[in-house]
Amino acid sequence: MKKYDIVVIGGGPAGVISAVTAKKYYPDKNVILVRKVEKGVIPCGIPYVFSSLDSVDKNIMPDKPLETNNIDLMIDELVSIDRKNKIVKFASAEEIQYEKLVLAIGSEPIVPPIPGVDKKGIYTIQKDLEFLRELRRKIYESKNIVIIGGGFIGVEFADELSKIEGLNIHIVEMLPHCLSGAFDEELSIPVEEKLRDMGIKLHLGVKAEEFIGGEKVEQVKLSNGEVLPVDLVILAIGAKPKTKIAEEAGLYIGRGGGIWVDEYMRTSDPDIFAIGDCAEKRCFFTRKHIPVMLASIATSEARIAGSNLYELKVVRENRGTIAVFSTKVGDLALGSAGLIEKRAKEEGFEVITGVARGVDKHPGALPGANQVMVKLIFSKCSGTILGGQVLGGPSAGEVINIIGLAIQKRVQAVELETLQMATHPWLTPAPTVYPVVVAAMNALSKIK
Amino acid sequence: MKKYDIVVIGGGPAGVISAVTAKKYYPDKNVILVRKVEKGVIPCGIPYVFSSLDSVDKNIMPDKPLETNNIDLMIDELVSIDRKNKIVKFASAEEIQYEKLVLAIGSEPIVPPIPGVDKKGIYTIQKDLEFLRELRRKIYESKNIVIIGGGFIGVEFADELSKIEGLNIHIVEMLPHCLSGAFDEELSIPVEEKLRDMGIKLHLGVKAEEFIGGEKVEQVKLSNGEVLPVDLVILAIGAKPKTKIAEEAGLYIGRGGGIWVDEYMRTSDPDIFAIGDCAEKRCFFTRKHIPVMLASIATSEARIAGSNLYELKVVRENRGTIAVFSTKVGDLALGSAGLIEKRAKEEGFEVITGVARGVDKHPGALPGANQVMVKLIFSKCSGTILGGQVLGGPSAGEVINIIGLAIQKRVQAVELETLQMATHPWLTPAPTVYPVVVAAMNALSKIK
Repeated sequence: MKKYDIVVIGGGPAGVISAVTAKKYYPDKNVILVRKVEKGVIPCGIPYVFSSLDSVDKNIMPDKPLETNNIDLMIDELVSIDRKNKIVKFASAEEIQYEKLVLAIGSEPIVPPIPGVDKKGIYTIQKDLEFLRELRRKIYESKNIVIIGGGFIGVEFADELSKIEGLNIHIVEMLPHCLSGAFDEELSIPVEEKLRDMGIKLHLGVKAEEFIGGEKVEQVKLSNGEVLPVDLVILAIGAKPKTKIAEEAGLYIGRGGGIWVDEYMRTSDPDIFAIGDCAEKRCFFTRKHIPVMLASIATSEARIAGSNLYELKVVRENRGTIAVFSTKVGDLALGSAGLIEKRAKEEGFEVITGVARGVDKHPGALPGANQVMVKLIFSKCSGTILGGQVLGGPSAGEVINIIGLAIQKRVQAVELETLQMATHPWLTPAPTVYPVVVAAMNALSKIK
Repeated sequence: MKKYDIVVIGGGPAGVISAVTAKKYYPDKNVILVRKVEKGVIPCGIPYVFSSLDSVDKNIMPDKPLETNNIDLMIDELVSIDRKNKIVKFASAEEIQYEKLVLAIGSEPIVPPIPGVDKKGIYTIQKDLEFLRELRRKIYESKNIVIIGGGFIGVEFADELSKIEGLNIHIVEMLPHCLSGAFDEELSIPVEEKLRDMGIKLHLGVKAEEFIGGEKVEQVKLSNGEVLPVDLVILAIGAKPKTKIAEEAGLYIGRGGGIWVDEYMRTSDPDIFAIGDCAEKRCFFTRKHIPVMLASIATSEARIAGSNLYELKVVRENRGTIAVFSTKVGDLALGSAGLIEKRAKEEGFEVITGVARGVDKHPGALPGANQVMVKLIFSKCSGTILGGQVLGGPSAGEVINIIGLAIQKRVQAVELETLQMATHPWLTPAPTVYPVVVAAMNALSKIK
């Protein structure tokens, strides 16, 4: 039987970064990473392999970090964990004994129980090179595409597919707005306008009730009675943690359905860690579980796990997930971090909010300036920042990281109002109207 | 005699923002802003009025914030302050009585004592519309331009003037590298390469020794013996605080030559505040004075002063200046915040540094990806971040603000290493190699 000090299961960002971090912190330990697929794909790049990248192969996850760090690689599928003897067993009948085991086994797409959902032409998104090659081929043979779900994945697919000529693209979202998990209404609306400008048809506040056709899907029936002709359906309504093997091994499962982990990403077995989509996420503010599945969170957890495998680095714990992410719709970049106003209120916070609008260059007459909007949400009582949302040009992708850091450091509105920041005519809004500062000021002015 | 509760002297970003903030915090007070020039200019935009903006008038500072906030405006020049009777006197013989006075009177360019420096064709940069119109005309009549000083202003002028066809542009910098106040050598060098690629001639480690010519400058003699033919010289070696009137009024002047101020921007007279370039700046780390003159710092100080005029908001103080700024050379954006490695060592810090290189999109095969480089400097003993520098695409302008906030919140390297950040294929580097995180990790790996 093979023996390794550290066995990592899963080849996504969580798996790779935990293996690399483990090797950096414990260079004398030998490490193996086991993944199911021959070639991994970069998950965040998946929506962009249909037109922006000229082939799916441009989105292969490189194995070089494993090679340069002397991490062994095995292609196999985990089938069970024998915790008593500290052995993991694989589909090929291969077995490996471990000292420390890291589960980075990911999630699987949710398939909604809609009649006809098993017809041909209906796809969930799989993180698999062969699958994506096939999907790309099918998309180019299609004319009418219906995306079920107007969250990030649905919107990103619609954005990308709109670059392919001749496609009719529909998004069906049962909530009243797209992206409503991450944006308050006043920021979702401009995004929806942008999607419509790009020719994408939005069906909001509407459910898909039935997929109609023979063996292959031909129509989608909506809850408002409309029937859309369709060649290809993409299901983008979310994913759930893969936990079956962990559960069978007797590891605790959290209330949110992920593998339970402590602040150091340890499962209920101290020699087994879980990270990324398969691991339970707790909200930074409330400690309740939250269904956030992001590569960036996965890598943060991977770094915590990798460094804490053999001894706890006490200051390197997981303080809870803040769900900071960004995306792009046409030329509009958008980001969200922490709580949106709606959810903050639902959680019981008394909030004050501030909004600022401006342009991302100064003077605004400079060529290439984009409109910018920033919304910040603070606890009214303590002044602590709870969340923020940004719409703007490409720099919005890093502006949301300023807000994300502010949340993680529990920054006060008054600190943001007097923030020292870099501004430059070509790169940022003017210092006099820097939107993060102005939004904080506008929030504060409500409590004076 | 006119009477105002709050009198602000100076129409730059500091003056405007202090007046607006004062009005927000003390809406019942009447406020007047007095400035010397009929029309103000946006200071950071000055380098870009020669080609990027099609006229100098596109860079006029708008008076709308004053109008919408009911702030009176007077065009006049301050000549003295009668502190006993709380009266300010102006060149027109006008006098105004004040309750609170805010001095935002700025700086003046340093004119080096080089023989021939008073010849025609040699310009310092004035924040004045008429002056800039004249300078723009002269630049378009010139062929050979020599910029004395390779700091931000010199480099930004060179970058902008290189967009005008047919100009020979020289930078003369007496230190071994351009931008050496804000960047360590390994980051200055790529910037210098970029400047050279753009056809700009650099004369590094060399002084201008004499301006030669008749009434008008015709040649510049350098300390290495070279003689450059020249039609127009721009002096960009820095500025000094304007303090004469404050000094005559008996206000303390700091060791760095600026008007002394406390943490709330109060001068030695509690009814007089000083902000922006005229006010002394203290280093966030050492409390020594530092010669930082930036609109963004000025606006931060203006917000502190404006809100503290009548009563101290104790949490809204000035914790010291971190000098966070950004600029752009050709298509290369760059930013710096806090201490550079060289200065940190000179100050006596034992430091560890980490460098990360990557691309600002992922996968890197996406069109429009730029190379990125991040350097972070930490105190070795405490792990606290002391400074950071970034080179990259346009998003570098906001990445430096993440680092700036981290410095202001005294973030630890381990916190940055496990930072939760937003990443997106079109907007940021990949989460697995996010440069701020990787630079922190690389720094930490040196102390394990």
